[in-house]
Amino acid sequence: MSRTYETFVERLHELADLGHAQGLMSWDQETYMPPRGAAMRARAMGTLAGLYHERLTAPELVALVADLKDAELTGDAAVNVREIDRQQSRSLKLPKELVVELSQTESLGHEAWIGAREKSDFALFQPWLEKIVALKKQVAERVGYEGAMYNALLDEYEPYARAEEIAPVFAQLKAQLVPLVEQITATGLYPARGVLDQEYPIEQQELLGQQVLADMGFDMEAGRLDLAVHPFCAGTSRDDVRLTTRYSADWLPGSLFGTIHEGGHGLYEQGLPADASGTPAGASVSLGIHESQSRLWENMVGRSKAFWTHYLPKLRALFPQQLSAVDLDAFYAAVNQVEPSLIRVEADEVTYNLHILLRFELECDLIEGQVAVAELPEAWNERMEQYLGIRPPDDALGVLQDTHWSCGLLGYFPTYTLGNLYAAQFFYQAHQDLPDLEAQIAQGALGPLKDWLNEKIHARGARATASELVEEVTGAKLSADYFIDYLWEKFGSLYGLSR
Amino acid sequence: MSRTYETFVERLHELADLGHAQGLMSWDQETYMPPRGAAMRARAMGTLAGLYHERLTAPELVALVADLKDAELTGDAAVNVREIDRQQSRSLKLPKELVVELSQTESLGHEAWIGAREKSDFALFQPWLEKIVALKKQVAERVGYEGAMYNALLDEYEPYARAEEIAPVFAQLKAQLVPLVEQITATGLYPARGVLDQEYPIEQQELLGQQVLADMGFDMEAGRLDLAVHPFCAGTSRDDVRLTTRYSADWLPGSLFGTIHEGGHGLYEQGLPADASGTPAGASVSLGIHESQSRLWENMVGRSKAFWTHYLPKLRALFPQQLSAVDLDAFYAAVNQVEPSLIRVEADEVTYNLHILLRFELECDLIEGQVAVAELPEAWNERMEQYLGIRPPDDALGVLQDTHWSCGLLGYFPTYTLGNLYAAQFFYQAHQDLPDLEAQIAQGALGPLKDWLNEKIHARGARATASELVEEVTGAKLSADYFIDYLWEKFGSLYGLSR
Repeated sequence: MSRTYETFVERLHELADLGHAQGLMSWDQETYMPPRGAAMRARAMGTLAGLYHERLTAPELVALVADLKDAELTGDAAVNVREIDRQQSRSLKLPKELVVELSQTESLGHEAWIGAREKSDFALFQPWLEKIVALKKQVAERVGYEGAMYNALLDEYEPYARAEEIAPVFAQLKAQLVPLVEQITATGLYPARGVLDQEYPIEQQELLGQQVLADMGFDMEAGRLDLAVHPFCAGTSRDDVRLTTRYSADWLPGSLFGTIHEGGHGLYEQGLPADASGTPAGASVSLGIHESQSRLWENMVGRSKAFWTHYLPKLRALFPQQLSAVDLDAFYAAVNQVEPSLIRVEADEVTYNLHILLRFELECDLIEGQVAVAELPEAWNERMEQYLGIRPPDDALGVLQDTHWSCGLLGYFPTYTLGNLYAAQFFYQAHQDLPDLEAQIAQGALGPLKDWLNEKIHARGARATASELVEEVTGAKLSADYFIDYLWEKFGSLYGLSR
Repeated sequence: MSRTYETFVERLHELADLGHAQGLMSWDQETYMPPRGAAMRARAMGTLAGLYHERLTAPELVALVADLKDAELTGDAAVNVREIDRQQSRSLKLPKELVVELSQTESLGHEAWIGAREKSDFALFQPWLEKIVALKKQVAERVGYEGAMYNALLDEYEPYARAEEIAPVFAQLKAQLVPLVEQITATGLYPARGVLDQEYPIEQQELLGQQVLADMGFDMEAGRLDLAVHPFCAGTSRDDVRLTTRYSADWLPGSLFGTIHEGGHGLYEQGLPADASGTPAGASVSLGIHESQSRLWENMVGRSKAFWTHYLPKLRALFPQQLSAVDLDAFYAAVNQVEPSLIRVEADEVTYNLHILLRFELECDLIEGQVAVAELPEAWNERMEQYLGIRPPDDALGVLQDTHWSCGLLGYFPTYTLGNLYAAQFFYQAHQDLPDLEAQIAQGALGPLKDWLNEKIHARGARATASELVEEVTGAKLSADYFIDYLWEKFGSLYGLSR
């Protein structure tokens, strides 16, 4: 390794250490920080973000990147130089005034959004969203893009992805999902959810969550599970991965599937390559790939019949009163009920992606100027009717439901659906590589799947881009087919439908 | 406020924000961090310490200090410039190689100390302590000092204190304590401790701790209480103060007095002046003053008869089985038993400072070259016999018991005794200013004392130096008389002795 590259890696480790502090501060803010600590925390996080930016764009590091770009590197070195170059170029192109104005606007816009949602009054949020969209367009112009302007924003969450490539995949998905939802709805079959809505003492829910995480192979020596209002997975390094969940005493799925979901994220983080720790090559590759890991565990494993073949008896032992009369088929149906609903975060596996596609389309239209912010509520409601057959009675249950846009997260939503598509494609491949996978899951042996994910996906870090990784692991480009096949196989059978 | 001073304060806020991150990382390391996170945490903390040093000694801040020193400032501005100048000069005088060598030696020395204490073999630690002492002397030579070389080390923990000033006060204290301990021991009166050694369910101990903290006025909206192996008070700002405690199911005093002690530290932090937050003027003034706040609450309040007049009935309600037959006098005697013992952290109020004086004297002798490291165990044991009449059977119970020297904390020990002396002097003054103080405490009304401490001490931040503060609050210079009078009044009565 050249002395130049060694110096470069030292600088990356410094960035990683600043990221370590920022990761802990974010986690703490949502878990243990006392309320009055918020103001100083916000300031301190701002200072660290500023320091991170300063170090990332420091002339010394810029010069190192320039030298190393000429050095014909291979392997991790090439990945690290490419990624730092990408992040650095992006940061260098954004004038400080724009970054500060965007940050302040997002902060105030988020406050405005809270008030607007409470009052279900989009007009209160509209001027802020107009300003945010305008600033985001400025950002896109500054950082530059090929093809759609939207790509400049998408790149922040799903590096190297392009709207031109994902739009047709999403369109294919929509073309299949809308009629599938209609068919399911038309059956009138709504497996009773009552079984999940009983009293489930939180102490036993905690035991259950800990047990499932342990079975998944989540390492509590290198991680934690805590409480948070909005569950997430955070942490400071692969050796310190922090999951959060929340418990509701009268609704089991919230904590159970939430914990499995975050556990999927956590396994990805713990499985990142140790030998590239603290450099881009050792980090997760994209939000879409991250979400594929959580959704694969939550839905494809956690809501499968095989999974409940093993866990329902365990669940009955924890909750004998609630579940003694519930058989596998009834429980499996209960955790897989499909019903068009207004709120994305409560949506089932089949309808969920329609919520996302709607947002993706509207985001693109906003950025390309084809929908004005003022027209957004109506556009939202129309598409809800078109895709899911229901119309929000007010904007709190419609366009105001998600926090993302108020925080400037434009370009983020598609990573959720990408995650579902990646997950189905990976899960399909896992079945090819592990012919006994269903039987293993039905015996509670989750290790083989975890090991497969570790080897094929987690240990690859960011050594391949998301689309390269999908092709490397599955031998095929991203396609909606795997997910659609998965849905038809599972829900066709549950609802007695054939394709 | 001049533009120069404004820029200076911006730089101080950046330092405070880095300190915020460091404070959280330290707290987390002792409370929630999973074990495997330790290595990356150590590296990240090293990086942040390096950044702090870089910013503190940055040419821009050096130039700002130089400009402001010529500006004849007053008030907080004068304090801030003086304190940053002091910290900066100290840092600038220490070559990076020395700082790194010291840090590494302390780290390895601490590991060696752990092994040496386990095996009770001082020889394993001796070469490390020799190196640490040699490096600390180099530090002293570099930063410079007036009078004793020891002053250069003391200054890090008790700014502006001088060995020449505290040595006579400590000598006076020792001259009184040694015969007092002898007289108490000679009475043969050892109030039974059995009452404290029963089973006390931890859940109730937690309730008790929370209640006492609330009564003391510790604000849980701006703080927390968590578990830690070695209790401490940490945090990130006056709005986010984190206490820790530990519970033993068969020994009540550990958590109870530990929580009150840390609560005293916590009240100081929460009471620091908001308008000087994030600058030296708004920070605590010295470790000695900090310790005065914890010891005042722990011993002078928490171990007083007045306190137990109010709390014993509450304690009985929580632990009816254990305490129904115990009256106030018996309980008061039990929490105030005096007995010479080997371990500092378990020592009672009367013998405690003799443990400290011994360490202070040996530290001075080590630095001045009057005792060699190799002679330390024997010197330790001799003085233990001289001061407390007992001789450690081995070095684990003697010279190897404390972690401080292995971590390079030479000059730290005297702040414990300074804290006790300050506490007694403050508590005396509080009685002058609040004639009903005893009666208030006996009614569980701790607010007036808290308010007095807030106004007289906490809200002063570092606007006065420790010795100035003592004189400002009590009208007198630091003296051992207050503490000795306090001991005689309390323990003379308990043990039936007169002066």
